[in-house]
Amino acid sequence: MNRPERAFPRQEIRLERRLPTYWRVTFDLPPVNIFGPRETLRLGEIITAIEQDEQVKVVVFDSAVDGFFITHYDFLAPLEESANIPPGPTGLQALPDMLVRLSKAPVVSIASIRGRATGVGSELALASDMRFASREKAILSQWEVGAGLVPGGGPMARLPRLMGRGRALEVLLSADDINGDLAERYGYVNRSIPDAELDGFVDALAMRIASFDKQAIADTKQLVDVASLPRDSEIKPEWDAFIAALGRPASQKRIKALMDRGFHRAGDVENRLGFYVGQLGS
Amino acid sequence: MNRPERAFPRQEIRLERRLPTYWRVTFDLPPVNIFGPRETLRLGEIITAIEQDEQVKVVVFDSAVDGFFITHYDFLAPLEESANIPPGPTGLQALPDMLVRLSKAPVVSIASIRGRATGVGSELALASDMRFASREKAILSQWEVGAGLVPGGGPMARLPRLMGRGRALEVLLSADDINGDLAERYGYVNRSIPDAELDGFVDALAMRIASFDKQAIADTKQLVDVASLPRDSEIKPEWDAFIAALGRPASQKRIKALMDRGFHRAGDVENRLGFYVGQLGS
Amino acid sequence: MNRPERAFPRQEIRLERRLPTYWRVTFDLPPVNIFGPRETLRLGEIITAIEQDEQVKVVVFDSAVDGFFITHYDFLAPLEESANIPPGPTGLQALPDMLVRLSKAPVVSIASIRGRATGVGSELALASDMRFASREKAILSQWEVGAGLVPGGGPMARLPRLMGRGRALEVLLSADDINGDLAERYGYVNRSIPDAELDGFVDALAMRIASFDKQAIADTKQLVDVASLPRDSEIKPEWDAFIAALGRPASQKRIKALMDRGFHRAGDVENRLGFYVGQLGS
Repeated sequence: MNRPERAFPRQEIRLERRLPTYWRVTFDLPPVNIFGPRETLRLGEIITAIEQDEQVKVVVFDSAVDGFFITHYDFLAPLEESANIPPGPTGLQALPDMLVRLSKAPVVSIASIRGRATGVGSELALASDMRFASREKAILSQWEVGAGLVPGGGPMARLPRLMGRGRALEVLLSADDINGDLAERYGYVNRSIPDAELDGFVDALAMRIASFDKQAIADTKQLVDVASLPRDSEIKPEWDAFIAALGRPASQKRIKALMDRGFHRAGDVENRLGFYVGQLGS
Repeated sequence: MNRPERAFPRQEIRLERRLPTYWRVTFDLPPVNIFGPRETLRLGEIITAIEQDEQVKVVVFDSAVDGFFITHYDFLAPLEESANIPPGPTGLQALPDMLVRLSKAPVVSIASIRGRATGVGSELALASDMRFASREKAILSQWEVGAGLVPGGGPMARLPRLMGRGRALEVLLSADDINGDLAERYGYVNRSIPDAELDGFVDALAMRIASFDKQAIADTKQLVDVASLPRDSEIKPEWDAFIAALGRPASQKRIKALMDRGFHRAGDVENRLGFYVGQLGS
Repeated sequence: MNRPERAFPRQEIRLERRLPTYWRVTFDLPPVNIFGPRETLRLGEIITAIEQDEQVKVVVFDSAVDGFFITHYDFLAPLEESANIPPGPTGLQALPDMLVRLSKAPVVSIASIRGRATGVGSELALASDMRFASREKAILSQWEVGAGLVPGGGPMARLPRLMGRGRALEVLLSADDINGDLAERYGYVNRSIPDAELDGFVDALAMRIASFDKQAIADTKQLVDVASLPRDSEIKPEWDAFIAALGRPASQKRIKALMDRGFHRAGDVENRLGFYVGQLGS
């Protein structure tokens, strides 16, 4: 558990109860907001708190790390740490379990995306009820296919429902970086907002919804979910496919090549992951 | 049935058979095109005529009242008037019944939206086959959650199929006014058209479709509907949720607060309902 | 099989294996890329090759004919030629069979659309995994309803899943030409690209995907398809409806009127088919 190689002053996911009805969850895992087994456990606690609290109506997810919303899963963490996390209440593995529960919670979840939302970051945004992006500073991507992997946290189920099959296949199979403007045109996010206005916009929307009746919110959301939310049985095979792909030589070779170039460290590979997965060769 | 307090020179929903193949339905219920039990009965007659006529191919819905397409349900009408309307042929309550039947009719329905399409107005537009909006003068909204209500006429089933779950949840849970530009970007309407061109555009499209073969139109529409139209069983619980919410103190308090400020009368509350529901407090 | 009346120097659908992993299929059927029974057989061979090859990862469809990607079905070919083609492996008729198989193949298909993609051309593009259009030179349409027909190759199932029911009904029931800009706004194509950049964009995307791992591509695509691809049982009735409509006087009269004006020949009717079907009268 001791990781001196990235001993940053703080390494946390913060839960701030700005109001009893309006919470903020802030990812502060410098330098690049990598999400691994420890973060899985921490986010799981927060999702449970969201589900159980009787007052909260809105929760906003954002980042305190410049350039990164949340990036990909932690491929340096010992595999046992991930494997040892038990499945969640839905019966799904921990990460897809908490994403599914976030979507179903009787609380409005809003992803406020500034910087890279790659892999897990994109998957958390897609599991949230709404997504707003910085027009200049947001990058969304599912980079996994570029590394010989299959995404594991729901995007094959969720992206086609937001943007249609063709654009979803482009996002997933190009494995490339999508900027704020294109993310809005594709429906990857609700809207892209000029960076200087993003925080004010999201805060005003959250405050507005927090002023409404919790039961009216929850009942309306539940009726939307009837036809628009994937069933758990659609989410499950994605994680299985991710684990299977992780064990294949194609992904091991590509992940190693990325590591050799600077993956998992501050620098150009993390900043332009879409470019680098396109340079690995077949 | 006598309502001297809004005794306007005319209070009607007009059906004009412009051609045997092309009909227009015009809402003329000044000052703000509120839709209540009387309008439910009248629109029901028109929907039945559309279903039974052998020649009509296209019907356009528009408004003769400046600033309003159709706004919300009539909360001043005696509740018995609404309760006394029997369910329709689908077994659904009268309003969702006629919206469902409009979607299934072997006739093309087009909503031409100028002014506010709020609540029932948005729901009628969503049940129509196509929606075109004045870029400058259309406002769409589902304001209900802002008043502690749950919308009752189908938008939880229909909006996510048009714009994806995230944007649908934003429309429904922000309960805010959506202008013509954003309505087009979100797919709430097919297109927003410069106001000066809207009538000509819709008329030309209607005339064009009216020149085509009725069976080719009906067969094509029926095949589109197989996968894209919600089943009646998805629509039904929305009305039930609306009625349940209407009986709760949260909505009663909010509707009363809106009435105190000028709801149901010409003026700023009706003109900017999205703003006002955001001012009621929790 | 001898058709001296359109004896062009070449009449073919070319398969070029640019790399073992990256194929191009080019429609070269001047003057207007009409697609008939002979092309059905040829494209069927190509789809089978795509399914069976172990190396190919990406196939791009494009055209060598100025102004036309692929236009409509060949109404001059003897009906026996079409009727004699046996159903395909899916049990569907030959054309819908091969479109369905293309969508399901473990290979990424990309339609690069320059010129008219009308009828069969639109249907092939919709069955492809991704669609990119020349902003200036692409026209997409389902013209069939304008000729008293019902489209037969899947668009009633596929269009609403890409753009929602309202825009799909507009495309199908207006039967009008859709330019590159509107096609992008509606999600008919992934993106419209300035014509000068289209070929470079598509080639770079294809080369990029061809550098990725075939199994990661195939597994990811298969998971996207679970919820986003129509079942074969939705596609089948479209072909049946097309054949039924083709036997009705309404379509025969309209097709004859189009033939009298120049249909199936180079010229204004083929160039502006959307306009001409609007001139036939009811």
